[in-house]
Amino acid sequence: MSSFAPPADLAGATALYVEVQHFYGRQMRHLDEGEIQQWADTFTEDGVFTANAHPKPQEGRAAIVEGALAAHRKLADQGIRRRHWLGMLQVAEQPDGTIRADSYAIVLAIPAGGQAAVELSCSCADVLVRDGAGLRVRHRSVRRDDLPPR
Amino acid sequence: MSSFAPPADLAGATALYVEVQHFYGRQMRHLDEGEIQQWADTFTEDGVFTANAHPKPQEGRAAIVEGALAAHRKLADQGIRRRHWLGMLQVAEQPDGTIRADSYAIVLAIPAGGQAAVELSCSCADVLVRDGAGLRVRHRSVRRDDLPPR
Amino acid sequence: MSSFAPPADLAGATALYVEVQHFYGRQMRHLDEGEIQQWADTFTEDGVFTANAHPKPQEGRAAIVEGALAAHRKLADQGIRRRHWLGMLQVAEQPDGTIRADSYAIVLAIPAGGQAAVELSCSCADVLVRDGAGLRVRHRSVRRDDLPPR
Repeated sequence: MSSFAPPADLAGATALYVEVQHFYGRQMRHLDEGEIQQWADTFTEDGVFTANAHPKPQEGRAAIVEGALAAHRKLADQGIRRRHWLGMLQVAEQPDGTIRADSYAIVLAIPAGGQAAVELSCSCADVLVRDGAGLRVRHRSVRRDDLPPR
Repeated sequence: MSSFAPPADLAGATALYVEVQHFYGRQMRHLDEGEIQQWADTFTEDGVFTANAHPKPQEGRAAIVEGALAAHRKLADQGIRRRHWLGMLQVAEQPDGTIRADSYAIVLAIPAGGQAAVELSCSCADVLVRDGAGLRVRHRSVRRDDLPPR
Repeated sequence: MSSFAPPADLAGATALYVEVQHFYGRQMRHLDEGEIQQWADTFTEDGVFTANAHPKPQEGRAAIVEGALAAHRKLADQGIRRRHWLGMLQVAEQPDGTIRADSYAIVLAIPAGGQAAVELSCSCADVLVRDGAGLRVRHRSVRRDDLPPR
């Protein structure tokens, strides 16, 4: 964790930390609301999504759309809504200008007319880049805490 | 979600985002600790609380106090403590000077001597106004994720 | 909660609130990853950890290390990972220069190959001090919501 040293530019570090929180709020809402194209647009065109629960990485926006659509349809068929929470955030600007953002994730599952429950606990390691006015994910690695690291 | 565009005033947007987080921490603690009058004071005098789980909106502080007192007494009788978490926050200043704040909510239920569990997952859409030195809720709309929209 | 009045120095209060969030993200990761020495280093040398679930306070870093190592070994033997979330944060600088930080805490338990679940809901009251470039905990009081106050 030595990369998360205290920042020289306090105001800038404060603004960036909040910006990443804001970004995640917007990004995960897109996924949870089934706005899959907008979800995919929060990744760079060549963005990569890798997870210890997936057999192989999703490489590029088209693959990310495909994966999210399949998951969303399956949940819709089951009448289940998901809510993704990211928290316990660590943010650090890297020497190459990218932003490393590490977070904990909780996935809640809420069946229509049923009992909400924790479905999954994960750790999420992102490489974010600034693209125009906003942030995008260039690389995301999600580790489900119940599964061994890949 | 197009209303959540990147802000022109970065320092101001950063401070507002954190202020809303701080406000919610204080507000929900009042509710969870049974400080119902202080809870009601975090709404404007004409504040409205509407929810897809309620038969009709609570309009004005007196109605909000009444609703919260009834809920709090019922939980106390059952020996249940609740903890409300708001997160995944989106904040945007509106052209009319109000502040739109959207969040996810988790309600935890903790029976005395028993097992804590997720009771509810909700989405919360607030219209906040600045009143003196602080924020107040003018309009809150809470949607339980397990129930259909009203 | 009257100590959490609106701050005179908005930019400073904003930066401090975010700094505490950042600190907690780093601190609890150390605990959850079993980095017990780094965890203990986030307390002052004379730091105190008290909890309504503990028979007596842990006083000083050595006692904090001892308690965390015992807990970590027990969980490792059971194949259980924990994730600590702190949220709903309240932060206030005190007249004596210390920082009061109150938070809600959720402890998730994730058995290897099993179902993640909420294990505990707690309230956490910290006294933080600035030590060199960063923050440390001088006094932590954790109250499990399912147990009576001590």
